[in-house]
Amino acid sequence: MKHVRFIAEGRLQRGTYADGMITTPAGKQYQEAGIDVWLPPVEPNKIIGLALNYADHAEELGLEKPAEPVLFIKPNSSVVGHKAPVYYPDGATYMHYENELAVVIGREGRFIKREHALDYVCGYTIANDVTVRDFVNNFYRPPVRAKGHDTFGPIGPVLVDKEDIPDITNVELRTYVNNELRQQGNTRDLMYTIPELIEFISSFMTLEPGDIILTGTPKGISHVYPGDVMRLEIEGIGVLENPVLDGRTEQ
Amino acid sequence: MKHVRFIAEGRLQRGTYADGMITTPAGKQYQEAGIDVWLPPVEPNKIIGLALNYADHAEELGLEKPAEPVLFIKPNSSVVGHKAPVYYPDGATYMHYENELAVVIGREGRFIKREHALDYVCGYTIANDVTVRDFVNNFYRPPVRAKGHDTFGPIGPVLVDKEDIPDITNVELRTYVNNELRQQGNTRDLMYTIPELIEFISSFMTLEPGDIILTGTPKGISHVYPGDVMRLEIEGIGVLENPVLDGRTEQ
Repeated sequence: MKHVRFIAEGRLQRGTYADGMITTPAGKQYQEAGIDVWLPPVEPNKIIGLALNYADHAEELGLEKPAEPVLFIKPNSSVVGHKAPVYYPDGATYMHYENELAVVIGREGRFIKREHALDYVCGYTIANDVTVRDFVNNFYRPPVRAKGHDTFGPIGPVLVDKEDIPDITNVELRTYVNNELRQQGNTRDLMYTIPELIEFISSFMTLEPGDIILTGTPKGISHVYPGDVMRLEIEGIGVLENPVLDGRTEQ
Repeated sequence: MKHVRFIAEGRLQRGTYADGMITTPAGKQYQEAGIDVWLPPVEPNKIIGLALNYADHAEELGLEKPAEPVLFIKPNSSVVGHKAPVYYPDGATYMHYENELAVVIGREGRFIKREHALDYVCGYTIANDVTVRDFVNNFYRPPVRAKGHDTFGPIGPVLVDKEDIPDITNVELRTYVNNELRQQGNTRDLMYTIPELIEFISSFMTLEPGDIILTGTPKGISHVYPGDVMRLEIEGIGVLENPVLDGRTEQ
Protein backbone atom coordinates (compact mmCIF):
# COMPACT_ATOMS: atom_id res chain seq x y z
CA MET A 1 0.00 0.00 0.00
CA LYS A 2 1.11 3.59 -0.64
CA HIS A 3 0.68 6.01 2.27
CA VAL A 4 0.49 9.79 1.99
CA ARG A 5 0.13 12.81 4.23
CA PHE A 6 -1.36 16.02 2.85
CA ILE A 7 -3.24 19.20 3.63
CA ALA A 8 -6.83 19.47 2.50
CA GLU A 9 -9.74 21.39 3.91
CA GLY A 10 -7.38 23.21 6.23
CA ARG A 11 -5.93 20.28 8.09
CA LEU A 12 -3.30 17.56 8.02
CA GLN A 13 -4.75 14.34 6.67
CA ARG A 14 -3.46 10.86 6.01
CA GLY A 15 -4.56 8.46 3.33
CA THR A 16 -3.61 5.77 0.88
CA TYR A 17 -2.81 6.44 -2.74
CA ALA A 18 -3.73 4.42 -5.81
CA ASP A 19 -4.25 5.38 -9.47
CA GLY A 20 -4.33 9.13 -8.98
CA MET A 21 -6.77 8.94 -6.09
CA ILE A 22 -6.25 9.34 -2.35
CA THR A 23 -8.57 7.64 0.12
CA THR A 24 -8.66 8.68 3.77
CA PRO A 25 -9.37 6.27 6.62
CA ALA A 26 -12.88 7.80 6.74
CA GLY A 27 -13.39 6.77 3.13
CA LYS A 28 -13.30 10.26 1.69
CA GLN A 29 -11.58 10.53 -1.69
CA TYR A 30 -9.42 13.25 -3.22
CA GLN A 31 -8.09 13.50 -6.76
CA GLU A 32 -4.28 13.71 -6.85
CA ALA A 33 -4.56 16.89 -8.93
CA GLY A 34 -6.68 18.60 -6.30
CA ILE A 35 -4.19 18.35 -3.41
CA ASP A 36 -2.94 21.75 -2.24
CA VAL A 37 0.03 20.61 -0.17
CA TRP A 38 1.83 17.27 -0.09
CA LEU A 39 3.64 16.60 3.15
CA PRO A 40 6.54 14.19 3.49
CA PRO A 41 4.82 10.80 3.93
CA VAL A 42 6.62 10.30 7.23
CA GLU A 43 7.65 12.83 9.88
CA PRO A 44 11.39 12.18 9.91
CA ASN A 45 13.18 11.36 13.13
CA LYS A 46 16.76 11.49 11.90
CA ILE A 47 17.92 11.46 8.30
CA ILE A 48 21.13 9.62 7.56
CA GLY A 49 22.72 10.28 4.18
CA LEU A 50 25.33 8.31 2.26
CA ALA A 51 28.10 10.35 0.66
CA LEU A 52 28.96 7.91 -2.12
CA ASN A 53 27.26 4.60 -2.61
CA TYR A 54 26.72 3.82 -6.29
CA ALA A 55 29.47 2.09 -8.23
CA ASP A 56 28.65 4.01 -11.43
CA HIS A 57 28.66 7.38 -9.64
CA ALA A 58 31.98 6.57 -7.91
CA GLU A 59 33.46 5.65 -11.30
CA GLU A 60 32.14 8.91 -12.78
CA LEU A 61 33.89 10.85 -10.01
CA GLY A 62 37.06 8.73 -10.24
CA LEU A 63 36.72 7.59 -6.63
CA GLU A 64 37.17 4.17 -5.06
CA LYS A 65 34.61 2.40 -2.92
CA PRO A 66 35.06 3.86 0.58
CA ALA A 67 36.43 1.45 3.19
CA GLU A 68 33.18 1.87 5.07
CA PRO A 69 29.92 3.71 4.36
CA VAL A 70 30.46 7.49 4.64
CA LEU A 71 27.54 9.04 6.48
CA PHE A 72 26.22 12.51 7.10
CA ILE A 73 23.11 13.78 8.84
CA LYS A 74 20.61 15.86 6.94
CA PRO A 75 18.76 18.28 9.25
CA ASN A 76 15.01 17.77 9.51
CA SER A 77 14.50 21.47 8.89
CA SER A 78 15.58 20.86 5.27
CA VAL A 79 12.64 18.56 4.54
CA VAL A 80 9.78 19.51 2.24
CA GLY A 81 7.12 17.54 0.38
CA HIS A 82 6.27 16.78 -3.23
CA LYS A 83 5.70 19.91 -5.37
CA ALA A 84 7.24 22.28 -2.79
CA PRO A 85 9.78 24.81 -4.08
CA VAL A 86 13.50 24.20 -3.64
CA TYR A 87 15.33 27.51 -3.30
CA TYR A 88 18.52 28.16 -5.24
CA PRO A 89 20.79 30.06 -2.82
CA ASP A 90 21.77 33.50 -3.90
CA GLY A 91 25.35 33.33 -5.18
CA ALA A 92 25.48 29.55 -5.65
CA THR A 93 26.89 28.13 -8.88
CA TYR A 94 26.72 24.35 -8.65
CA MET A 95 23.38 23.06 -7.43
CA HIS A 96 22.24 19.57 -8.31
CA TYR A 97 19.54 17.02 -7.55
CA GLU A 98 20.39 13.56 -6.16
CA ASN A 99 17.72 10.94 -6.72
CA GLU A 100 17.88 8.48 -3.81
CA LEU A 101 15.94 5.50 -2.59
CA ALA A 102 14.97 6.40 0.97
CA VAL A 103 14.62 3.54 3.46
CA VAL A 104 12.18 4.27 6.29
CA ILE A 105 12.80 2.56 9.63
CA GLY A 106 9.71 1.21 11.40
CA ARG A 107 11.14 -0.40 14.51
CA GLU A 108 13.85 0.51 16.99
CA GLY A 109 17.02 -1.50 16.70
CA ARG A 110 20.69 -1.59 17.62
CA PHE A 111 23.36 -4.19 16.72
CA ILE A 112 21.15 -5.40 13.86
CA LYS A 113 22.62 -8.19 11.76
CA ARG A 114 22.25 -7.84 8.01
CA GLU A 115 20.22 -11.03 7.74
CA HIS A 116 17.51 -9.49 9.95
CA ALA A 117 17.87 -5.92 8.73
CA LEU A 118 14.73 -5.76 6.62
CA ASP A 119 12.63 -6.63 9.70
CA TYR A 120 13.38 -3.07 10.86
CA VAL A 121 12.27 -1.41 7.60
CA CYS A 122 8.66 -0.37 7.16
CA GLY A 123 8.91 0.92 3.63
CA TYR A 124 10.46 3.12 0.99
CA THR A 125 10.06 6.57 -0.45
CA ILE A 126 11.94 8.89 -2.82
CA ALA A 127 14.33 11.56 -1.57
CA ASN A 128 16.03 14.35 -3.45
CA ASP A 129 19.29 15.03 -1.60
CA VAL A 130 19.70 18.51 -3.07
CA THR A 131 23.31 19.69 -2.86
CA VAL A 132 25.16 22.89 -3.61
CA ARG A 133 28.65 21.81 -4.50
CA ASP A 134 30.08 25.32 -4.03
CA PHE A 135 30.05 24.60 -0.30
CA VAL A 136 31.74 21.18 -0.42
CA ASN A 137 35.08 22.10 -1.94
CA ASN A 138 37.23 22.69 1.08
CA PHE A 139 39.26 20.59 3.49
CA TYR A 140 36.36 20.08 5.88
CA ARG A 141 33.89 19.04 3.17
CA PRO A 142 31.10 20.59 5.20
CA PRO A 143 27.92 18.70 4.37
CA VAL A 144 25.63 20.91 6.46
CA ARG A 145 25.97 24.03 4.36
CA ALA A 146 25.99 22.04 1.11
CA LYS A 147 23.02 19.81 1.91
CA GLY A 148 21.25 21.30 4.93
CA HIS A 149 19.68 24.42 3.47
CA ASP A 150 15.93 24.78 4.08
CA THR A 151 14.05 23.04 1.20
CA PHE A 152 17.06 20.83 0.25
CA GLY A 153 15.29 17.66 1.42
CA PRO A 154 12.24 16.90 -0.73
CA ILE A 155 10.76 13.54 0.28
CA GLY A 156 7.75 11.65 -0.99
CA PRO A 157 5.14 11.71 -2.22
CA VAL A 158 4.30 8.21 -0.98
CA LEU A 159 5.64 5.72 1.54
CA VAL A 160 5.37 2.27 -0.04
CA ASP A 161 5.11 -0.73 2.26
CA LYS A 162 8.20 -2.87 1.85
CA GLU A 163 6.05 -5.88 0.96
CA ASP A 164 4.95 -4.09 -2.19
CA ILE A 165 8.44 -3.92 -3.69
CA PRO A 166 9.21 -7.44 -4.84
CA ASP A 167 12.99 -6.92 -5.22
CA ILE A 168 14.49 -3.77 -3.71
CA THR A 169 17.92 -4.75 -5.09
CA ASN A 170 16.68 -4.19 -8.61
CA VAL A 171 14.68 -1.02 -9.01
CA GLU A 172 15.28 1.69 -11.58
CA LEU A 173 15.85 5.34 -10.72
CA ARG A 174 15.35 8.07 -13.32
CA THR A 175 15.65 11.84 -12.99
CA TYR A 176 14.27 14.31 -15.49
CA VAL A 177 14.94 18.04 -15.54
CA ASN A 178 12.28 19.85 -17.56
CA ASN A 179 11.29 16.48 -19.05
CA GLU A 180 14.84 15.72 -20.23
CA LEU A 181 16.31 12.47 -18.87
CA ARG A 182 19.48 13.35 -16.92
CA GLN A 183 20.10 10.52 -14.47
CA GLN A 184 19.45 6.83 -14.67
CA GLY A 185 20.52 4.08 -12.31
CA ASN A 186 19.50 0.89 -10.60
CA THR A 187 19.77 -0.17 -6.97
CA ARG A 188 21.72 -3.22 -8.13
CA ASP A 189 24.73 -0.85 -8.30
CA LEU A 190 24.63 0.05 -4.59
CA MET A 191 28.13 -0.53 -3.18
CA TYR A 192 26.74 -1.04 0.31
CA THR A 193 23.38 -2.82 0.23
CA ILE A 194 20.48 -1.81 2.45
CA PRO A 195 21.06 -4.66 4.91
CA GLU A 196 24.78 -3.81 5.08
CA LEU A 197 23.97 -0.14 5.74
CA ILE A 198 21.54 -1.03 8.52
CA GLU A 199 24.09 -3.37 10.09
CA PHE A 200 26.81 -0.70 9.91
CA ILE A 201 24.74 2.23 11.18
CA SER A 202 23.15 0.26 14.00
CA SER A 203 26.58 -1.00 15.11
CA PHE A 204 27.06 2.42 16.75
CA MET A 205 23.74 4.29 16.57
CA THR A 206 20.25 3.28 17.57
CA LEU A 207 17.88 3.24 14.63
CA GLU A 208 14.46 4.52 15.62
CA PRO A 209 11.02 4.58 13.99
CA GLY A 210 10.91 7.45 11.51
CA ASP A 211 14.64 7.35 10.81
CA ILE A 212 15.34 7.63 7.10
CA ILE A 213 18.41 6.30 5.30
CA LEU A 214 19.20 8.00 1.99
CA THR A 215 21.01 5.24 0.15
CA GLY A 216 23.07 7.40 -2.23
CA THR A 217 22.65 8.56 -5.79
CA PRO A 218 23.66 6.92 -9.09
CA LYS A 219 25.61 8.41 -11.99
CA GLY A 220 24.24 11.44 -13.80
CA ILE A 221 24.10 14.43 -11.53
CA SER A 222 23.94 17.76 -13.35
CA HIS A 223 23.30 21.39 -12.56
CA VAL A 224 19.87 22.88 -12.12
CA TYR A 225 18.88 26.53 -12.08
CA PRO A 226 15.92 28.65 -11.04
CA GLY A 227 12.98 27.86 -13.30
CA ASP A 228 13.91 24.17 -13.69
CA VAL A 229 11.66 21.36 -12.54
CA MET A 230 13.28 18.25 -11.02
CA ARG A 231 11.30 15.07 -11.53
CA LEU A 232 12.59 11.98 -9.71
CA GLU A 233 11.11 8.58 -10.47
CA ILE A 234 11.75 5.33 -8.67
CA GLU A 235 10.21 2.18 -10.04
CA GLY A 236 7.43 0.84 -7.83
CA ILE A 237 7.31 3.98 -5.69
CA GLY A 238 6.32 6.92 -7.83
CA VAL A 239 7.33 10.41 -8.88
CA LEU A 240 8.71 13.22 -6.70
CA GLU A 241 8.61 16.57 -8.45
CA ASN A 242 9.92 19.92 -7.20
CA PRO A 243 10.51 23.24 -8.94
CA VAL A 244 13.69 25.27 -8.37
CA LEU A 245 13.01 28.89 -7.42
CA ASP A 246 15.32 31.85 -7.10
CA GLY A 247 16.58 32.02 -3.50
CA ARG A 248 16.25 35.80 -3.50
CA THR A 249 12.48 35.26 -3.27
CA GLU A 250 12.92 33.09 -0.17
CA GLN A 251 13.40 35.93 2.25
CA MET B 1 16.91 30.11 36.96
CA LYS B 2 18.32 26.62 36.32
CA HIS B 3 15.91 24.10 34.80
CA VAL B 4 16.27 20.32 35.00
CA ARG B 5 14.46 17.22 33.82
CA PHE B 6 14.86 13.98 35.74
CA ILE B 7 13.28 10.66 36.65
CA ALA B 8 11.99 10.21 40.17
CA GLU B 9 9.24 8.06 41.53
CA GLY B 10 8.94 6.31 38.19
CA ARG B 11 8.18 9.28 35.99
CA LEU B 12 9.70 12.16 34.05
CA GLN B 13 9.66 15.32 36.14
CA ARG B 14 10.73 18.91 35.62
CA GLY B 15 12.02 21.29 38.21
CA THR B 16 14.36 24.10 39.06
CA TYR B 17 17.76 23.59 40.62
CA ALA B 18 19.50 25.64 43.31
CA ASP B 19 22.11 24.77 45.93
CA GLY B 20 21.93 21.01 45.58
CA MET B 21 18.14 20.94 45.72
CA ILE B 22 15.52 20.45 42.98
CA THR B 23 12.06 21.93 43.38
CA THR B 24 9.18 20.78 41.17
CA PRO B 25 6.34 23.05 40.05
CA ALA B 26 4.20 21.31 42.70
CA GLY B 27 6.69 22.41 45.35
CA LYS B 28 8.10 18.96 46.02
CA GLN B 29 11.83 18.91 46.76
CA TYR B 30 14.52 16.38 45.90
CA GLN B 31 18.15 16.34 47.03
CA GLU B 32 20.57 16.37 44.08
CA ALA B 33 22.24 13.25 45.43
CA GLY B 34 18.96 11.34 45.45
CA ILE B 35 18.20 11.66 41.73
CA ASP B 36 18.24 8.31 39.92
CA VAL B 37 18.35 9.57 36.36
CA TRP B 38 19.20 13.02 35.00
CA LEU B 39 17.70 13.71 31.62
CA PRO B 40 19.05 16.30 29.19
CA PRO B 41 17.44 19.55 30.38
CA VAL B 42 15.90 20.05 26.95
CA GLU B 43 14.61 17.52 24.44
CA PRO B 44 16.84 18.41 21.49
CA ASN B 45 15.30 19.23 18.14
CA LYS B 46 18.48 19.36 16.05
CA ILE B 47 22.03 19.58 17.34
CA ILE B 48 24.46 21.67 15.31
CA GLY B 49 28.13 21.21 16.11
CA LEU B 50 31.12 23.41 15.30
CA ALA B 51 34.22 21.62 14.03
CA LEU B 52 36.77 24.17 15.14
CA ASN B 53 35.90 27.40 16.88
CA TYR B 54 38.43 28.26 19.60
CA ALA B 55 41.54 30.22 18.67
CA ASP B 56 43.68 28.34 21.21
CA HIS B 57 42.48 24.94 19.99
CA ALA B 58 43.09 25.91 16.34
CA GLU B 59 46.61 27.01 17.26
CA GLU B 60 47.16 23.72 19.13
CA LEU B 61 46.18 21.82 15.97
CA GLY B 62 48.18 24.13 13.69
CA LEU B 63 45.04 25.16 11.79
CA GLU B 64 43.87 28.56 10.60
CA LYS B 65 40.50 30.07 11.36
CA PRO B 66 38.12 28.54 8.80
CA ALA B 67 36.74 30.94 6.19
CA GLU B 68 33.29 30.26 7.58
CA PRO B 69 31.98 28.24 10.54
CA VAL B 70 32.33 24.50 9.83
CA LEU B 71 29.18 22.71 10.96
CA PHE B 72 28.13 19.14 11.51
CA ILE B 73 24.93 17.61 12.85
CA LYS B 74 25.04 15.41 15.92
CA PRO B 75 22.24 12.82 15.88
CA ASN B 76 19.71 13.10 18.70
CA SER B 77 20.12 9.39 19.37
CA SER B 78 23.59 10.16 20.77
CA VAL B 79 22.22 12.29 23.59
CA VAL B 80 22.35 11.22 27.25
CA GLY B 81 22.07 13.06 30.53
CA HIS B 82 24.36 13.88 33.43
CA LYS B 83 25.89 10.78 35.07
CA ALA B 84 24.95 8.43 32.20
CA PRO B 85 27.69 6.13 30.92
CA VAL B 86 29.57 6.96 27.74
CA TYR B 87 30.64 3.80 25.97
CA TYR B 88 34.17 3.42 24.63
CA PRO B 89 33.75 1.61 21.29
CA ASP B 90 35.44 -1.74 21.06
CA GLY B 91 38.62 -1.30 19.02
CA ALA B 92 38.83 2.49 19.34
CA THR B 93 42.16 4.11 20.26
CA TYR B 94 41.64 7.87 20.39
CA MET B 95 38.55 8.88 22.30
CA HIS B 96 38.31 12.33 23.86
CA TYR B 97 35.89 14.69 25.60
CA GLU B 98 35.08 18.13 24.21
CA ASN B 99 33.73 20.59 26.74
CA GLU B 100 31.37 22.96 24.91
CA LEU B 101 29.05 25.75 25.80
CA ALA B 102 25.69 24.68 24.34
CA VAL B 103 23.33 27.42 23.18
CA VAL B 104 19.66 26.45 23.34
CA ILE B 105 17.28 28.10 20.87
CA GLY B 106 13.91 29.17 22.24
CA ARG B 107 12.21 30.78 19.28
CA GLU B 108 11.97 29.98 15.58
CA GLY B 109 14.02 32.19 13.32
CA ARG B 110 15.53 32.52 9.85
CA PHE B 111 17.69 35.29 8.37
CA ILE B 112 18.51 36.45 11.91
CA LYS B 113 20.89 39.42 12.13
CA ARG B 114 23.67 39.16 14.72
CA GLU B 115 22.41 42.19 16.60
CA HIS B 116 19.11 40.41 17.33
CA ALA B 117 20.54 36.90 17.68
CA LEU B 118 20.29 36.61 21.45
CA ASP B 119 16.54 37.24 21.25
CA TYR B 120 16.31 33.71 19.84
CA VAL B 121 18.31 32.08 22.65
CA CYS B 122 16.50 30.82 25.74
CA GLY B 123 19.55 29.68 27.66
CA TYR B 124 22.73 27.67 27.98
CA THR B 125 23.83 24.23 29.07
CA ILE B 126 26.99 22.12 28.97
CA ALA B 127 27.63 19.57 26.23
CA ASN B 128 30.33 16.96 25.96
CA ASP B 129 30.90 16.44 22.23
CA VAL B 130 32.54 13.05 22.68
CA THR B 131 34.64 12.10 19.67
CA VAL B 132 36.57 9.05 18.57
CA ARG B 133 39.33 10.41 16.40
CA ASP B 134 40.08 7.00 14.86
CA PHE B 135 37.06 7.57 12.63
CA VAL B 136 37.97 11.10 11.46
CA ASN B 137 41.26 10.45 9.74
CA ASN B 138 40.24 9.94 6.16
CA PHE B 139 39.44 12.07 3.15
CA TYR B 140 35.74 12.28 4.00
CA ARG B 141 36.32 13.28 7.66
CA PRO B 142 33.10 11.48 8.55
CA PRO B 143 31.70 13.17 11.65
CA VAL B 144 28.81 10.76 12.09
CA ARG B 145 30.88 7.72 12.99
CA ALA B 146 33.31 9.82 15.06
CA LYS B 147 30.72 11.82 16.96
CA GLY B 148 27.35 10.10 16.46
CA HIS B 149 27.76 6.95 18.52
CA ASP B 150 25.01 6.32 21.08
CA THR B 151 26.02 8.01 24.38
CA PHE B 152 28.46 10.46 22.65
CA GLY B 153 26.25 13.45 23.43
CA PRO B 154 26.05 14.09 27.19
CA ILE B 155 24.12 17.30 27.85
CA GLY B 156 23.18 19.03 31.08
CA PRO B 157 22.56 18.86 33.89
CA VAL B 158 20.82 22.23 33.89
CA LEU B 159 19.51 24.73 31.37
CA VAL B 160 20.36 28.19 32.66
CA ASP B 161 18.19 31.10 31.57
CA LYS B 162 20.27 33.46 29.45
CA GLU B 163 19.45 36.36 31.77
CA ASP B 164 21.38 34.58 34.52
CA ILE B 165 24.71 34.67 32.68
CA PRO B 166 25.87 38.29 32.90
CA ASP B 167 28.52 38.01 30.14
CA ILE B 168 28.44 34.94 27.93
CA THR B 169 31.55 36.19 26.10
CA ASN B 170 33.63 35.66 29.22
CA VAL B 171 32.92 32.36 30.93
CA GLU B 172 35.49 29.79 31.95
CA LEU B 173 35.39 26.14 30.85
CA ARG B 174 37.32 23.48 32.74
CA THR B 175 37.49 19.74 32.19
CA TYR B 176 38.77 17.24 34.72
CA VAL B 177 39.46 13.57 34.09
CA ASN B 178 39.53 11.66 37.36
CA ASN B 179 39.88 14.98 39.17
CA GLU B 180 42.94 16.03 37.12
CA LEU B 181 42.55 19.32 35.24
CA ARG B 182 43.01 18.60 31.54
CA GLN B 183 41.29 21.39 29.64
CA GLN B 184 40.79 25.03 30.38
CA GLY B 185 39.42 27.79 28.20
CA ASN B 186 37.23 30.82 28.03
CA THR B 187 34.48 31.80 25.64
CA ARG B 188 36.39 35.00 24.90
CA ASP B 189 38.50 32.84 22.55
CA LEU B 190 35.58 31.82 20.34
CA MET B 191 36.57 32.58 16.75
CA TYR B 192 32.94 32.89 15.70
CA THR B 193 30.82 34.44 18.45
CA ILE B 194 27.37 33.17 19.34
CA PRO B 195 25.59 36.01 17.45
CA GLU B 196 27.79 35.38 14.40
CA LEU B 197 27.00 31.65 14.52
CA ILE B 198 23.26 32.29 14.77
CA GLU B 199 23.42 34.74 11.86
CA PHE B 200 25.41 32.26 9.74
CA ILE B 201 23.33 29.18 10.49
CA SER B 202 20.00 30.94 10.08
CA SER B 203 21.13 32.38 6.73
CA PHE B 204 20.37 28.95 5.24
CA MET B 205 18.60 26.86 7.91
CA THR B 206 15.60 27.61 10.08
CA LEU B 207 16.49 27.59 13.76
CA GLU B 208 13.71 26.05 15.81
CA PRO B 209 12.89 25.84 19.52
CA GLY B 210 14.96 23.04 21.03
CA ASP B 211 17.78 23.40 18.53
CA ILE B 212 21.16 23.29 20.23
CA ILE B 213 24.37 24.86 18.96
CA LEU B 214 27.58 23.33 20.31
CA THR B 215 29.97 26.26 20.09
CA GLY B 216 33.23 24.31 19.87
CA THR B 217 35.86 23.23 22.35
CA PRO B 218 38.97 25.04 23.62
CA LYS B 219 42.55 23.76 23.80
CA GLY B 220 43.31 20.74 25.91
CA ILE B 221 41.64 17.66 24.53
CA SER B 222 43.20 14.39 25.67
CA HIS B 223 42.42 10.72 25.56
CA VAL B 224 40.08 8.99 27.95
CA TYR B 225 39.67 5.28 28.61
CA PRO B 226 37.18 2.94 30.23
CA GLY B 227 37.14 3.59 33.94
CA ASP B 228 37.78 7.33 33.57
CA VAL B 229 35.29 9.95 34.73
CA MET B 230 34.89 13.12 32.64
CA ARG B 231 33.87 16.17 34.59
CA LEU B 232 33.03 19.28 32.59
CA GLU B 233 32.51 22.59 34.35
CA ILE B 234 31.27 25.83 32.84
CA GLU B 235 31.19 28.93 35.00
CA GLY B 236 27.68 30.00 35.87
CA ILE B 237 26.12 26.80 34.54
CA GLY B 238 27.39 23.86 36.54
CA VAL B 239 29.06 20.47 36.26
CA LEU B 240 28.36 17.70 33.74
CA GLU B 241 29.90 14.41 34.78
CA ASN B 242 29.92 11.11 32.88
CA PRO B 243 31.89 7.91 33.36
CA VAL B 244 33.50 6.06 30.45
CA LEU B 245 32.56 2.39 30.28
CA ASP B 246 33.92 -0.42 28.15
CA GLY B 247 31.86 -0.62 24.95
CA ARG B 248 31.91 -4.40 25.08
CA THR B 249 29.39 -4.14 27.93
CA GLU B 250 27.06 -2.04 25.77
CA GLN B 251 25.61 -4.92 23.81
